[in-house]
Amino acid sequence: MAERPLSIGLVGFGTIGTGLVRALASHGALVAERLGFPLALTRIADVDLERDRGVSLAGVRLGRDWREIVNDPEIDLVVELVGGTKVAKDVVLAALDAGKSVVTANKALLATHGAEIYALAASKRTEIAFEASVGGTIPVLRALREGLCADRVRALHGIVNGTCNFILTQMEAQGEPYEVCLKRAQELGYAEPDPSFDVDGVDSAHKLAILVGLAFGARIAPDAFPIDGIRRIVPADIEYARRIGLRIKLLAVAKQSAAGIEARVQPTMIPRESVLAGVDGSMNAIEVRGELSGPTLYYGAGAGALPTASAVLSDLMELARARRLGVAGRVPPLGTREPADAVLCPPGEERGECYVRFTALDKPGVLSRITGALGARGISIASVLQEERHESRAVPIVLTVHEARQADLDAALADVARLPEVVAPAQKIRIEREL
Amino acid sequence: MAERPLSIGLVGFGTIGTGLVRALASHGALVAERLGFPLALTRIADVDLERDRGVSLAGVRLGRDWREIVNDPEIDLVVELVGGTKVAKDVVLAALDAGKSVVTANKALLATHGAEIYALAASKRTEIAFEASVGGTIPVLRALREGLCADRVRALHGIVNGTCNFILTQMEAQGEPYEVCLKRAQELGYAEPDPSFDVDGVDSAHKLAILVGLAFGARIAPDAFPIDGIRRIVPADIEYARRIGLRIKLLAVAKQSAAGIEARVQPTMIPRESVLAGVDGSMNAIEVRGELSGPTLYYGAGAGALPTASAVLSDLMELARARRLGVAGRVPPLGTREPADAVLCPPGEERGECYVRFTALDKPGVLSRITGALGARGISIASVLQEERHESRAVPIVLTVHEARQADLDAALADVARLPEVVAPAQKIRIEREL
Repeated sequence: MAERPLSIGLVGFGTIGTGLVRALASHGALVAERLGFPLALTRIADVDLERDRGVSLAGVRLGRDWREIVNDPEIDLVVELVGGTKVAKDVVLAALDAGKSVVTANKALLATHGAEIYALAASKRTEIAFEASVGGTIPVLRALREGLCADRVRALHGIVNGTCNFILTQMEAQGEPYEVCLKRAQELGYAEPDPSFDVDGVDSAHKLAILVGLAFGARIAPDAFPIDGIRRIVPADIEYARRIGLRIKLLAVAKQSAAGIEARVQPTMIPRESVLAGVDGSMNAIEVRGELSGPTLYYGAGAGALPTASAVLSDLMELARARRLGVAGRVPPLGTREPADAVLCPPGEERGECYVRFTALDKPGVLSRITGALGARGISIASVLQEERHESRAVPIVLTVHEARQADLDAALADVARLPEVVAPAQKIRIEREL
Repeated sequence: MAERPLSIGLVGFGTIGTGLVRALASHGALVAERLGFPLALTRIADVDLERDRGVSLAGVRLGRDWREIVNDPEIDLVVELVGGTKVAKDVVLAALDAGKSVVTANKALLATHGAEIYALAASKRTEIAFEASVGGTIPVLRALREGLCADRVRALHGIVNGTCNFILTQMEAQGEPYEVCLKRAQELGYAEPDPSFDVDGVDSAHKLAILVGLAFGARIAPDAFPIDGIRRIVPADIEYARRIGLRIKLLAVAKQSAAGIEARVQPTMIPRESVLAGVDGSMNAIEVRGELSGPTLYYGAGAGALPTASAVLSDLMELARARRLGVAGRVPPLGTREPADAVLCPPGEERGECYVRFTALDKPGVLSRITGALGARGISIASVLQEERHESRAVPIVLTVHEARQADLDAALADVARLPEVVAPAQKIRIEREL
């Protein structure tokens, strides 16, 4: 306990940064007891120095210029909580270049510039840690990097965006449409005024890129795979799913198939009795299927100032231990010494079950024409639901299809769309049962 | 890849040991790629060298005497998979004493002799790892030791015995009694011919002792807290639980309360909609509630040769990395440099909700006398269910009581037992809602 503290500089004093200051105040003594030496937050940089964050800053030097932190020889560890990919990138690269270890929660930065950042850390014999970038407080990156390090991952399914999970949970519980539940999420602070980043799947895609990196030791760009959000989900889809024993979740999926890694962010139907389907509200969970380990699942708060600060602080402890021991690169950021570019499954070659909802005029023979069009492309139908009847109005026709090559299914859906009775684009949602 | 391998000696060539040999055969190249050097299994000791395990042992020296492994200067890492607390203890202590790092899956050994083993490892500047001892393949010890290292644990609830969880899941799904489901578990290999160790909660208690050590940085003996198994659970309890929105699981529980750590292994009713309640069959899960992190949960296979071997191998990789870097004790076994003896909540001082099923003759006024006896001890009743009616036979009377001091509740139940209408001991099951 008598050892001198390691000094931390924080760049970005927003919600998470304030949470970190608070966590250090409440849990700093515990951290020191566990480490054998204290962590001291000595500098903070932020453009806004006026706002009262309601935390004590005794002993902390505040400034507007992050370079003062990066250039301060007294600083051992830098925490980047600026967000975004511009200034944040400069901060992280400059800190690593100066030989400091860096903790960040910035998924966009790592998904986009991870390879450059990891390479610089390795060449400078320093370290970068980013547990808080995926799944908030859940130590899932550690689990992939060290807990499952002897295993090869077959598949990964994650609920990694609390905003979308909250909205979908509300839609199901209340039977209300997307717009109403989005508004509620915004009122409760679970969704931003402009929710696009969350509801269109972009945030999930950043996290999936990081997860793929760790699960497969493979580099992947966050725009190299299909990304789809939850705006198109209507209560009827949720209700039909329920009736066939399924629930809709926005899933980040990555699977090793013979044709390569299949990665995607999509609303997906999963068995109601699966553990993942029971993850409600704003909570996150990631299920990993390993060759030896089988399925393991990691659950917790995906956001929030203190849960995220807890993950940042655990990273700081890991990097502090490494510095005190004088070692670096004990475990590489992606868990392997030789990450490769991900070999992706070619678009359309993915195979899987699907739910399809058509909207068609209720004329005699329409179901036969739709199923005929699917059959002509080799698509095999598992179930049909055509309950509503209306002489003059379009009605929903709901099908599930057995495992099919997605290019074949998409071609069949295009054929169906050309039938005169079909009045709207088909709603297609993948079904995943191996959870 | 050109670096010389680290050499492993395996003591105990049973199911898990055979799984480890198989895992090294199938995943050894992956392990070498991730480490930057290979792990080579060079020696195995077991009393039974005749049995064909169906695995290739090229390059492995077999012997009957574990001392040959411990004394072999070429061996860097020793894996103890003997089981039990006698020979296994000698193996582990001798290996550590010889300066080797040790991996074990032996929960009984660590629960009973952990303090001595951790102290020897520290004094010899070597390491002991034991991820596979709790939750099989689930990296929950790593999560507690490093993922949540900045946080203080408030409570921990674990399903850590797959045998019991399988039997309870079967009892609920089939409506069958304990004995029938135990027999099925035995036929399927989920339960031993003598199931006591599992169904009486002893195995769960060993695991809880290890979990308490990591969660609270505190030493606790595996017989220092109440242990109860599942033999006393009848289908009626499961059905009554269902009707009040609960499910019965055998839980290992540890909570920090004002009076100390409350630890116990008991059948417990938990909300059906909780993630933990959705953990079925032989699967394990541990939920941890942290001050900063909130609830996190870790799920996976609690047993099985390959899942357990995956955890052993990940430990071997961690210890191999430390040896190559020439460091030891990066993170202490219990996550803190100064573990203390656990301060336990005095027996009877625990507070909580309960389900109580009485068996009483259906005479006028019996319910009033029972509730009166409870009220006299300050026990407040939350719900009453008295559905069956029978003039001459005893019927069940089911109550749930609000949070109560358990000593008060037990005194009240003793009072009730003395009522002339009450013909059998009350069935008491704790209810935990904070999951």
